[in-house]
Amino acid sequence: MGSAILQPVRTVDEMIRSRTPGWTLDREFYTGTSVFDADLDRVFRRSWLCAGHTSRIRDAGDYFLFEIAGDSIIIIRGRDQRIHALSNTCRHRGSRVCSAPAGNSKRLVCPYHQWVYDTDGSLLKARLMPDEFDVSEFGLRPVASRVVGSLIFVCLAGDPPEFEEFSRRVGAQLEPQRLEKARICHSRSYEVRANWKLVLENSRECYHCGVGHPQYCRAVGFAAGIDSPRIAELDAVTTRDRIAFLAQHGIETEPVLFRDETWFHCRRFFLRDGFSSETLDGSPAAPQLAVLPGEQLGVLAVVTFPNLLLEACADYAMLMRYSPVSPRATRVDVDWLVSQDAIDGTDLDAGRVEAFWRTTAEQDWTLCEENQLGIDSLAYQSGPYSPDERGVEQFVRWYLNQLSVTLENRESAANQ
Amino acid sequence: MGSAILQPVRTVDEMIRSRTPGWTLDREFYTGTSVFDADLDRVFRRSWLCAGHTSRIRDAGDYFLFEIAGDSIIIIRGRDQRIHALSNTCRHRGSRVCSAPAGNSKRLVCPYHQWVYDTDGSLLKARLMPDEFDVSEFGLRPVASRVVGSLIFVCLAGDPPEFEEFSRRVGAQLEPQRLEKARICHSRSYEVRANWKLVLENSRECYHCGVGHPQYCRAVGFAAGIDSPRIAELDAVTTRDRIAFLAQHGIETEPVLFRDETWFHCRRFFLRDGFSSETLDGSPAAPQLAVLPGEQLGVLAVVTFPNLLLEACADYAMLMRYSPVSPRATRVDVDWLVSQDAIDGTDLDAGRVEAFWRTTAEQDWTLCEENQLGIDSLAYQSGPYSPDERGVEQFVRWYLNQLSVTLENRESAANQ
Amino acid sequence: MGSAILQPVRTVDEMIRSRTPGWTLDREFYTGTSVFDADLDRVFRRSWLCAGHTSRIRDAGDYFLFEIAGDSIIIIRGRDQRIHALSNTCRHRGSRVCSAPAGNSKRLVCPYHQWVYDTDGSLLKARLMPDEFDVSEFGLRPVASRVVGSLIFVCLAGDPPEFEEFSRRVGAQLEPQRLEKARICHSRSYEVRANWKLVLENSRECYHCGVGHPQYCRAVGFAAGIDSPRIAELDAVTTRDRIAFLAQHGIETEPVLFRDETWFHCRRFFLRDGFSSETLDGSPAAPQLAVLPGEQLGVLAVVTFPNLLLEACADYAMLMRYSPVSPRATRVDVDWLVSQDAIDGTDLDAGRVEAFWRTTAEQDWTLCEENQLGIDSLAYQSGPYSPDERGVEQFVRWYLNQLSVTLENRESAANQ
Repeated sequence: MGSAILQPVRTVDEMIRSRTPGWTLDREFYTGTSVFDADLDRVFRRSWLCAGHTSRIRDAGDYFLFEIAGDSIIIIRGRDQRIHALSNTCRHRGSRVCSAPAGNSKRLVCPYHQWVYDTDGSLLKARLMPDEFDVSEFGLRPVASRVVGSLIFVCLAGDPPEFEEFSRRVGAQLEPQRLEKARICHSRSYEVRANWKLVLENSRECYHCGVGHPQYCRAVGFAAGIDSPRIAELDAVTTRDRIAFLAQHGIETEPVLFRDETWFHCRRFFLRDGFSSETLDGSPAAPQLAVLPGEQLGVLAVVTFPNLLLEACADYAMLMRYSPVSPRATRVDVDWLVSQDAIDGTDLDAGRVEAFWRTTAEQDWTLCEENQLGIDSLAYQSGPYSPDERGVEQFVRWYLNQLSVTLENRESAANQ
Repeated sequence: MGSAILQPVRTVDEMIRSRTPGWTLDREFYTGTSVFDADLDRVFRRSWLCAGHTSRIRDAGDYFLFEIAGDSIIIIRGRDQRIHALSNTCRHRGSRVCSAPAGNSKRLVCPYHQWVYDTDGSLLKARLMPDEFDVSEFGLRPVASRVVGSLIFVCLAGDPPEFEEFSRRVGAQLEPQRLEKARICHSRSYEVRANWKLVLENSRECYHCGVGHPQYCRAVGFAAGIDSPRIAELDAVTTRDRIAFLAQHGIETEPVLFRDETWFHCRRFFLRDGFSSETLDGSPAAPQLAVLPGEQLGVLAVVTFPNLLLEACADYAMLMRYSPVSPRATRVDVDWLVSQDAIDGTDLDAGRVEAFWRTTAEQDWTLCEENQLGIDSLAYQSGPYSPDERGVEQFVRWYLNQLSVTLENRESAANQ
Repeated sequence: MGSAILQPVRTVDEMIRSRTPGWTLDREFYTGTSVFDADLDRVFRRSWLCAGHTSRIRDAGDYFLFEIAGDSIIIIRGRDQRIHALSNTCRHRGSRVCSAPAGNSKRLVCPYHQWVYDTDGSLLKARLMPDEFDVSEFGLRPVASRVVGSLIFVCLAGDPPEFEEFSRRVGAQLEPQRLEKARICHSRSYEVRANWKLVLENSRECYHCGVGHPQYCRAVGFAAGIDSPRIAELDAVTTRDRIAFLAQHGIETEPVLFRDETWFHCRRFFLRDGFSSETLDGSPAAPQLAVLPGEQLGVLAVVTFPNLLLEACADYAMLMRYSPVSPRATRVDVDWLVSQDAIDGTDLDAGRVEAFWRTTAEQDWTLCEENQLGIDSLAYQSGPYSPDERGVEQFVRWYLNQLSVTLENRESAANQ
């Protein structure tokens, strides 16, 4: 303390190497701009990121902008009905091609000098350019994209990480939720004044749930069980019974756990007695979307590092995405998905659909912001995780591994 | 893409050397703080800058502040009736001497400890200083200044660029506009969220005018002619006829074109049929200021790098100055000049004077801001200029030359 | 000028060495982020800082947060009645423990995972941690603290500067003011848009008082005497008489002057005829708190570098603390202390208590902000102090010495 300036500045690599497993990361990881830049470059620009739900672009020409890690990406349903992800930067002078956050365009026309692109990004026309100008060389840059369970994923890297196992295993578990029959009934965006890793760490443990999330604990057995061996035991029994029941109905429930080389996690958990959905009163807030009612099917949670948390009930799904804004700020976008046939005021209560996760999320933002403020203090020092924070350690290990893999690549390259 | 951190950081000099002629500049030129600092230091602090019109300081003691490139300069009409440009920083403790943006002072008194300066900057009195203190050594620092066609220019450098050719050639063409008989009838300031070079580049081409500026194209032949060979031909005929007519009246119309070693440009162009001024309906909005009516005299455009665009009609002149605020923001100050004898509501319609250029300028700010947003994206890459963007290439070459000249000077110095 | 980028960047150490004694500091000291970081690290994190008055925490569990130099410190009255200063950062995940700026807590409970600390900082309970977890190793980090004349001082360094002489000598002079019988009747916080050193320099000279502070000069003889030898002479006579009188009453009045190795200053001065307090009309605004009336006792001024100015009259005391926010911004917190038995509307006029120093302070903020704006200009150059600015030179010497001491320590360490 008090001598930060006299100590030599540590590189991101040295910070990674000096980390104690099972303890929180050093202060710089949550406050420094060089770590933040590395997070964008080595994590967000190399990982598969969930961009949103396919219902936003049902018809040819429908598009929305996905803004992440310093890039703006046009996610568009092409005239060929396929989904294309394109850099939103004209190949002429670099203007944004689309400025509205969403819309429908049969052609993408740059507002500056009216270069015209097709919905697959190819350049159709550049007025008044010389004869030797070759339009085929000036299409909008394509971005890798995939769809699983009606969730759109993109990756900014030229060599994206392996996607097939995620697609197959998590795709299978998403099937009974029938999200392809869903539409977004409500969206909400937050700017949380905390580093994105604090937001993600918060989502990976329920050690804080007992006092922090009374509503969540009323609904979710495993959360309430952390502070009550009795409830934990009841939850274990319920889980065993429901899994057996679902197996009879051919529904896959084997958890897909994080491994050191993977970036995804999928787990079905079950609700407490009296709860058939993650709602404040336990009753559904929308018509059944999934193949079975919530009392039987429980909730499917999907996490993909670094930007997605999905909790899908039988009647609705909550889709949360994280986006780093600065070392101390994170944008969080939340969509609530319900059956596309649901009619508000009739079989749908949009206010009740939103209330449970709005309450839970906003409780978390306060905790995350207090966490950031405490870490901002130079007095902060690394502390030990409890056994109930295994998930945080798992995330931190994945995160550091992303940085290290890049370092190793660099070192190999340097040795050639 | 995606590996910015692993690539060594490029210096401004390397960025200059790696540029492809005829293509847009690299991303860092529009987003980086080191380039921005170099722009202030090597471009704005070494060039002649238009500070405004002499009508702002008609009487002895009249002054206004010109804030540019990190400096505040007092532009004051001295008791000797001459115009003085003085650094607005007390030589005692460094306080600002003048805080109002404009005013009248027969003496400049520092508000902190009341040191008193004359209107030419010399220190007249420093109370309670010891006997050996020599007031003659503590005048306000003078800044180089010149006046051409009633436009005030200043240069922060100790060795300003050559001014004489500009003064002589552009001064001659400004004469028939009679701006020395003008006053400012309206002013407007904008903060455009774009790098100053994007704002300037925008002003140097009309490839975007067809769709971007319908009002401008209705009035100005050469602009409309870009998308219409028929109108271009009509404009060529008009131009030939008017130039011949003006020659008979002894009015110099030979364009003063940019050369690689100059920083100024001056060109007279002509309005389309039915237009005698740059107004929305084509009719004058103020009494005639110039020596001839607008149908005959057309419009005189003066551009000086890096901060001035003037378009002078027969009835009014539009004076626009650029000032870099940050890598992604530029302040633009616009004055509308009319005859000093014009009376609003009688022979002057201030709203109509302003409307044409307000419309055109605000259309440009939107285009510039979209351009910046697209270049902010890491997906941006350099693109080719069209033949109609010659003026942009000219500016970019001048700009890079300013940086390179400084580099060469440094290299010579290092070799001694 | 104009070639900042071509000159090699100077280190803080080089800037210190190149300083001319008796002249103002270079521009970078008031604008640069590396100097600002050094100011926090080498000055604010190593010095004794006044945190406030003990009346804020009379009862066990009373606390307030003192935010300084990137740290949040809980100043709390323990269950043991002693005052404890504790880092406001949980030893588990680093959350802030207290978020309210002040309150009462018998136990400090982290809002994130409910770790429980005692009022002396020791960890009492960490739920669900494994058996081998040793609570005794995870108390809140203690911060050094002392109380003198009911003023609380803290120091973030592990090896705080010598405190004993200050405590003894200044403590003795504070005694007749009886601040331990005081309460805060009003507080006000400002964010002054000026470097903290400009604010402090402003407070260390009265060369600006004549024009800058007419109200202060009406009340205070030495201030008015700067511009008037006649008033200065009157003040000398008054001072001699009152000191003799106070000596008879056993009141110590020998000034405690800054020496090169000390950081504190204490001086009693006297009011002009008709003034018994620092009020706009000269009459007291609160019941007598000190041992003698203001006509006799005058005003005790205490300055401690880098954050305190106290002026204590017989009826009230003004307690001002500085806190650097950024290179160009300083937070100033002002408390007005009166007798704890005073009742507003009866024997206390809170508005009149506040008016004199509110007026004087706000006059100063304008001067400081103009000073910053002038120094922001690249045209700023160092200027000479007048003989009436000795106190500023004293502060600047102390300030540079703090930086140099640290440099020397580093050099010794490097040689071992």
